[in-house]
Amino acid sequence: MALMTADEYRERLRDGREVWYKGRRIEDVTLDPDIRVCVDTMAVDYELPEHGELRHLGVVRDPETGEEQSRYYHIPRNGDDLLLHQELIVAGTRLGDGFIPFAKDIGADVLSAIEITARRLGSQDYIDRIGAYGRYLRQNDLAVVAAVTDVKGDRMLRPSDPGQAHEDYYVHVVERRPDGIVVRGAKTHISGAAYAHEMFVIPCRTMGEADKDYALAFAVPCNQPGVRQILRPFHSRISSLEFPNTRPVRVHTESLVIFDDVFVPWERVFLDGEWQASNTLVHSFALLHRRTGVAYRIPMSEQLVGVAQAIAEYNGVAKAPHVVEKLTDMVIYLETLKGLARASCLDYTLHDGVAVPSPMLTNLAKFHFADRYHDMVKIIEDLAGGVLVTATTYADWQRDELRPDIEKYLGGKAGIPTEARLRMLDLIRRLTRSELETIVLQGEGSLMAQRMTIFFEARRILQNAKALVEEIAQVPREA
Amino acid sequence: MALMTADEYRERLRDGREVWYKGRRIEDVTLDPDIRVCVDTMAVDYELPEHGELRHLGVVRDPETGEEQSRYYHIPRNGDDLLLHQELIVAGTRLGDGFIPFAKDIGADVLSAIEITARRLGSQDYIDRIGAYGRYLRQNDLAVVAAVTDVKGDRMLRPSDPGQAHEDYYVHVVERRPDGIVVRGAKTHISGAAYAHEMFVIPCRTMGEADKDYALAFAVPCNQPGVRQILRPFHSRISSLEFPNTRPVRVHTESLVIFDDVFVPWERVFLDGEWQASNTLVHSFALLHRRTGVAYRIPMSEQLVGVAQAIAEYNGVAKAPHVVEKLTDMVIYLETLKGLARASCLDYTLHDGVAVPSPMLTNLAKFHFADRYHDMVKIIEDLAGGVLVTATTYADWQRDELRPDIEKYLGGKAGIPTEARLRMLDLIRRLTRSELETIVLQGEGSLMAQRMTIFFEARRILQNAKALVEEIAQVPREA
Amino acid sequence: MALMTADEYRERLRDGREVWYKGRRIEDVTLDPDIRVCVDTMAVDYELPEHGELRHLGVVRDPETGEEQSRYYHIPRNGDDLLLHQELIVAGTRLGDGFIPFAKDIGADVLSAIEITARRLGSQDYIDRIGAYGRYLRQNDLAVVAAVTDVKGDRMLRPSDPGQAHEDYYVHVVERRPDGIVVRGAKTHISGAAYAHEMFVIPCRTMGEADKDYALAFAVPCNQPGVRQILRPFHSRISSLEFPNTRPVRVHTESLVIFDDVFVPWERVFLDGEWQASNTLVHSFALLHRRTGVAYRIPMSEQLVGVAQAIAEYNGVAKAPHVVEKLTDMVIYLETLKGLARASCLDYTLHDGVAVPSPMLTNLAKFHFADRYHDMVKIIEDLAGGVLVTATTYADWQRDELRPDIEKYLGGKAGIPTEARLRMLDLIRRLTRSELETIVLQGEGSLMAQRMTIFFEARRILQNAKALVEEIAQVPREA
Amino acid sequence: MALMTADEYRERLRDGREVWYKGRRIEDVTLDPDIRVCVDTMAVDYELPEHGELRHLGVVRDPETGEEQSRYYHIPRNGDDLLLHQELIVAGTRLGDGFIPFAKDIGADVLSAIEITARRLGSQDYIDRIGAYGRYLRQNDLAVVAAVTDVKGDRMLRPSDPGQAHEDYYVHVVERRPDGIVVRGAKTHISGAAYAHEMFVIPCRTMGEADKDYALAFAVPCNQPGVRQILRPFHSRISSLEFPNTRPVRVHTESLVIFDDVFVPWERVFLDGEWQASNTLVHSFALLHRRTGVAYRIPMSEQLVGVAQAIAEYNGVAKAPHVVEKLTDMVIYLETLKGLARASCLDYTLHDGVAVPSPMLTNLAKFHFADRYHDMVKIIEDLAGGVLVTATTYADWQRDELRPDIEKYLGGKAGIPTEARLRMLDLIRRLTRSELETIVLQGEGSLMAQRMTIFFEARRILQNAKALVEEIAQVPREA
Repeated sequence: MALMTADEYRERLRDGREVWYKGRRIEDVTLDPDIRVCVDTMAVDYELPEHGELRHLGVVRDPETGEEQSRYYHIPRNGDDLLLHQELIVAGTRLGDGFIPFAKDIGADVLSAIEITARRLGSQDYIDRIGAYGRYLRQNDLAVVAAVTDVKGDRMLRPSDPGQAHEDYYVHVVERRPDGIVVRGAKTHISGAAYAHEMFVIPCRTMGEADKDYALAFAVPCNQPGVRQILRPFHSRISSLEFPNTRPVRVHTESLVIFDDVFVPWERVFLDGEWQASNTLVHSFALLHRRTGVAYRIPMSEQLVGVAQAIAEYNGVAKAPHVVEKLTDMVIYLETLKGLARASCLDYTLHDGVAVPSPMLTNLAKFHFADRYHDMVKIIEDLAGGVLVTATTYADWQRDELRPDIEKYLGGKAGIPTEARLRMLDLIRRLTRSELETIVLQGEGSLMAQRMTIFFEARRILQNAKALVEEIAQVPREA
Repeated sequence: MALMTADEYRERLRDGREVWYKGRRIEDVTLDPDIRVCVDTMAVDYELPEHGELRHLGVVRDPETGEEQSRYYHIPRNGDDLLLHQELIVAGTRLGDGFIPFAKDIGADVLSAIEITARRLGSQDYIDRIGAYGRYLRQNDLAVVAAVTDVKGDRMLRPSDPGQAHEDYYVHVVERRPDGIVVRGAKTHISGAAYAHEMFVIPCRTMGEADKDYALAFAVPCNQPGVRQILRPFHSRISSLEFPNTRPVRVHTESLVIFDDVFVPWERVFLDGEWQASNTLVHSFALLHRRTGVAYRIPMSEQLVGVAQAIAEYNGVAKAPHVVEKLTDMVIYLETLKGLARASCLDYTLHDGVAVPSPMLTNLAKFHFADRYHDMVKIIEDLAGGVLVTATTYADWQRDELRPDIEKYLGGKAGIPTEARLRMLDLIRRLTRSELETIVLQGEGSLMAQRMTIFFEARRILQNAKALVEEIAQVPREA
Repeated sequence: MALMTADEYRERLRDGREVWYKGRRIEDVTLDPDIRVCVDTMAVDYELPEHGELRHLGVVRDPETGEEQSRYYHIPRNGDDLLLHQELIVAGTRLGDGFIPFAKDIGADVLSAIEITARRLGSQDYIDRIGAYGRYLRQNDLAVVAAVTDVKGDRMLRPSDPGQAHEDYYVHVVERRPDGIVVRGAKTHISGAAYAHEMFVIPCRTMGEADKDYALAFAVPCNQPGVRQILRPFHSRISSLEFPNTRPVRVHTESLVIFDDVFVPWERVFLDGEWQASNTLVHSFALLHRRTGVAYRIPMSEQLVGVAQAIAEYNGVAKAPHVVEKLTDMVIYLETLKGLARASCLDYTLHDGVAVPSPMLTNLAKFHFADRYHDMVKIIEDLAGGVLVTATTYADWQRDELRPDIEKYLGGKAGIPTEARLRMLDLIRRLTRSELETIVLQGEGSLMAQRMTIFFEARRILQNAKALVEEIAQVPREA
Repeated sequence: MALMTADEYRERLRDGREVWYKGRRIEDVTLDPDIRVCVDTMAVDYELPEHGELRHLGVVRDPETGEEQSRYYHIPRNGDDLLLHQELIVAGTRLGDGFIPFAKDIGADVLSAIEITARRLGSQDYIDRIGAYGRYLRQNDLAVVAAVTDVKGDRMLRPSDPGQAHEDYYVHVVERRPDGIVVRGAKTHISGAAYAHEMFVIPCRTMGEADKDYALAFAVPCNQPGVRQILRPFHSRISSLEFPNTRPVRVHTESLVIFDDVFVPWERVFLDGEWQASNTLVHSFALLHRRTGVAYRIPMSEQLVGVAQAIAEYNGVAKAPHVVEKLTDMVIYLETLKGLARASCLDYTLHDGVAVPSPMLTNLAKFHFADRYHDMVKIIEDLAGGVLVTATTYADWQRDELRPDIEKYLGGKAGIPTEARLRMLDLIRRLTRSELETIVLQGEGSLMAQRMTIFFEARRILQNAKALVEEIAQVPREA
């Protein structure tokens, strides 16, 4: 087998999967006028190797077979591997005009996390299964996504807590059979699940003994019977009120994935009841996933910096002292993100032979961009001015009775075409949609999740620092 | 004449005005399915007196004629008048589910500002004209809006600066005739102009001598020939993806108002070239307008506090320490706003017999809510969780194949109906639309505009404080 | 009896009290060269009526006897009383160059709090006792301080928790006798206790039933046998490295007050075991005390604003845009504090006939100034420049070999004497001492204490806001 | 010649230099009881190689002579060199209990900066002179400091502006002679100048043509006739109120250095009027110096983290949610600093063969720690509690009448000796002295200086980002 083409990727999506969108059952996701925009966005990953200067990022040789394979399915062994992986995500996201393709990136995070868990657990069975499944993905160049976040019910209660309205708020085993298991539950916010080939399913929290039936990891094809997806609404085209644009629209959608007593054969089960190992799996995935999140926010943040600079210039205010201050804040935001992201790769550690980035620096980077994102949006909205909301539309622009007035009156700095300003305002509105605020806050874990990880990672740092000052203060030992 | 009814208000909008929306010329704003939603929102002001317990807020007796009139057209004489005026705005905005009616509130701000300016200028002509026009508004109970912000062109350049692409970026006089003047230019972000009866036009910045043709204030009916409006897009109905709601939708829109050589008779001209007085007019209006802005944000902010508390409870996290902290931050936001708003009325000053709220406290209140608004949105998006973006839609809910799963899996805390959670998420999405972020930031002047006013008002405070510490430090006088 | 003079106040301090300072037993606090500076600061309260224009603030007529008495001992009945009380604190603190006299202000807060508690408890005994004691204070014009904060031990444990190293971390009754009680424990950070006449002792936290022996309020003279004070170090004079200054130095110190089995007669006991009432007492005092704290920070903050403006001018940078921004931030800090403080009086409520300021606004004001104080210090240190730390001293200035160079090289803006700049730097160093940072953070309760009060006060606000949005969203009732 | 010992370093300070402290002329800085504490702190650099495990950091072989020399005088050629240099500074500062030795670190920054400037200027003369001087420093292992900041006068005016009170606010040439130049002026905040052997003098700002006599760089021995130093006060010992400590006190002081018509021979002149090159010199030094500042703040920040953790544990609150949040904030502070510092070395660039760290990341790191420092101090003061200010002293502790009470009542969590808590509070007071706040803010340039550099470095980033979004928005080219 070789690398898939974008068309082969699409072809393989026509598999009878159950997908619902805005109350409609979708027959073929590659033909639906909305969803195929998402399909095209995922296909960017399959197109990337065609960009000659990017091929070295996207494609590596399989050390076993010598065949070409996606770098995503290559296990990183050192900091340089991690940096190249990061650059691949950045490059793919740039190709997608700010949207990461989602074809393999997060799936690859799960693949590594399960491998680390299987090795730590010392289970040859699991090691063999994940090894075989990895080969299957690699050799068929499949798109695989990750179903992680359960719907949870009452967020303060554990899965099996009797205070939960029912016991299915977290995906769990409801039957064990000779050939496999039957699972029930629902996963939410699953990016790209409607147009990937395969789906990993892993827990979103550490499980205790009482919740051992929820300590569960497996993979299924997206058309597995009983797997039902409902998609969230998304903007698949530029509105007729906006200036037309020949660049393809890029967008993704997320699924609510319902597991309605879905059968999973044993060879696709990677954890089943070993609750003590859930901690390793959850934390390994969270770390790798945040690393991915950090990488793909770099091109997104570059766009934020760009629109700020552009609209400030168009409005003629780019040199006002308070504007310089705001633009500097935006650069601080972007460059801190980039600096911490790179540093996280260089300070890698080996987990059972797999190179993982520094958990501290990865979480710092992720927390940084999510925590300060609203401030960046605020700056852009401040620099754009009220016209961001009140600008006339492309529908008005097309009217002969109105266009001369619009062209005359909505100009900014002399020499900048009014159309430039209006197009930039269109773009800013698309980039500052409030749904993105939530996605930035919640994607790859909430702010609190990062803070908790940072604190967890900091225990040794805190105790060492305490010992140091106790020595300096010559504090007596316990009474 | 007496108070108008809501229907009389609507009737009087059928006057042939030139209004464009999404590239269409609107024949009758009261019949257009989109714009009449705005009309209904403005009509709330005319309905308010029918709510018995609010009548004392909305209606006062004309001291001259003894007739009933709107409180908006009553000149405040002391702090209690200002507090009642504030309470009227709060009450009207609550009736409008968070939307101020805009029928007279901002127009009233201009009325007072012009009166103060005319008196300070000592021009009996202007005093008489504004007196007569005020009587006309009062006795006919008209809806009048304020056209203030010019389109500006290059924001760093003055109106007549030769670096501007043309000289019409600010509204100015192009001809003076025996019976009046002819004006040209465009005003932007003019709330409610498409469905008010009259329109004040005043400068948005202080004018120097070189710009004296721009030092201009006047009023015209909204159907005056040459006045052309283009409206910004707005949400006039709840989407079919949202749960239906029997409460009327409330919304406003803003106009780009083009003055295509519009004639204004002398009796409606309140400033024409007296550039030294533009400072008084601009600052008086900015102060009164921000006072209005501060008042109507109180009910808006109450909604923000409410959705935060509701969704935290629905998700089961209301008692988590970090959630308590965030809810406390939201209360601090709201109560600081309310405290400063009330204090601004109590610390009023008299300007030529007109009571105006404390400029310092009014600007502090305005700056506070605009500067911290994004933080509040961030808290709400944090508490709501990713489901804010990925929740299934009402279109899905209506399908028998999907509704049981949705009802089962999208529940939160036990005992809270899933529908409650989904409806609250619908509301949160409406309340946190990114366009509102811009409106909060830019409405009634940018953050920088408030900071500049605060600094201007602080000159005496700074010098007194400096003198105090120089006395304490026994600093010698100049060498 | 009439009002005391400052000398009579001092005379009455010579009573054999046990006071320790830096390891020395102090015989007479009015003669000790350090402590008498504190005594002089407290005496400012007794001197205030001599400033004719302030007499109306400091002195009122006793409604019963018609005699003159301190306003502090006058129970406020409405918002105007509260405002005058606030102005008295501000005026006294200004007289003290930023130090509140502490003679009666905090004692008066306890007096009111105990009165509210006794009335709410409905105990005629306690009502009579506090009435009599209030008369005693009033008629003798005594200085009385408040001993509130216990030493606490482990802050997470209640007083009687067996995990505490001993049971005396909070003051409690160890013996009940026919004529009174015997108490043991220690109170910390007791401002002015070494040079007041009397001392109130009340709990610093709400007590449960298990801690009822700690639910205790009483008063003792400061020389009561067994009352032992250890003072914290303080700066009682300007160092020889600073420019001399003929204004008296103002300063206070705090005591660790040890109650070494101290006897208290029944007529001075105001709570003894009624643990359910401890809540009322603690919260009433906290509220009134924070009101006092808010008031005396106003003159302190004026000094901060003053030094910022002065040093910016002396350095020649007052008009640089980023400096204007920082000065504006300082004004926002000061004026928000003043606005909220005034508003808290105007929004008063009556508690059993005693007017108390709005708990919400009082806590908002207190939180505001404590939370942002470090930012203000940072601005001042930024504007002053490194010379704040590295400036030459007055000892150098006095040397003929050095003074010409210092005068020449440490000048700032032309026309400002070098001595002015050096004196201002001396003052800034005194005003930005790090001990003040801690005092601002911790005085009148920590930031967390204010946040908890704000949240407590907000319960109704949160629930009302929630009900409002549930109505708007048409949320169904519980399933 | 070989490496100097600490004693040889001290011996060479006895050279008749003119040093004043608190109005006294100091005969021998190594004998003065105050200043020798600073001398001992600088001597740490000479002691470092004796710590076997650090020798590889402190000592390298001279590539020319094969002799051992200080790493500081080794020109870095790549990222690894920069990292080792950074580790050396960190190690030296740890040895100095948080104080960088200052013997060669900043001098080395100037050495590199001058070398870069000379090469860019292409002046063989200057290249030879700085080469020879570098060899002299290296082979004699001398301590050399940097005199950079001029006293400036009016900060808004250039050196030669006639609005300045005199022309000597910046060091400049007053005479050119056959054998050298004569210079006049004063430099301020010169760390360690009183106890180093040599002193570099360079401009603190870019000079224009009008200021070319101020475009001046040279070196002099610290005892050069006409060089007069006045020291700032500092704490050379632990006060008798604090618990005694057998660790040596570490501290530095800064000098105001007056150049009273000082002669400098040509071979020590490295810039004289080439004003166009002042930009390179100033920016190269600022970058390298900030890199140094970033490194030595790491051990300082570790101490801050340590005292926060220690006092939280001693007070028994380390697990309270709001305390965990604050400790997490402190770790974020420290680890962001470390991550950016390391990344700045890895992203190095070569300037004429000299490896310099990334200007963007270096300035981000510096800005980060200085901008957030006050927040960290606030957290520590918050966690320590009011006892930080009001704790009894060691003088009290020594009294038999008081010690049992202190030991009993000032305990915290059971099991922690009271002495431990009191010693930790002593240390916290020393670490949070307000002078350190100013030093952190102003050291290595003000916050504004870093922001300006960041903006300068960002020009390309801003323009690239703008071009990117213009492409995405399909903005038309200029009209």
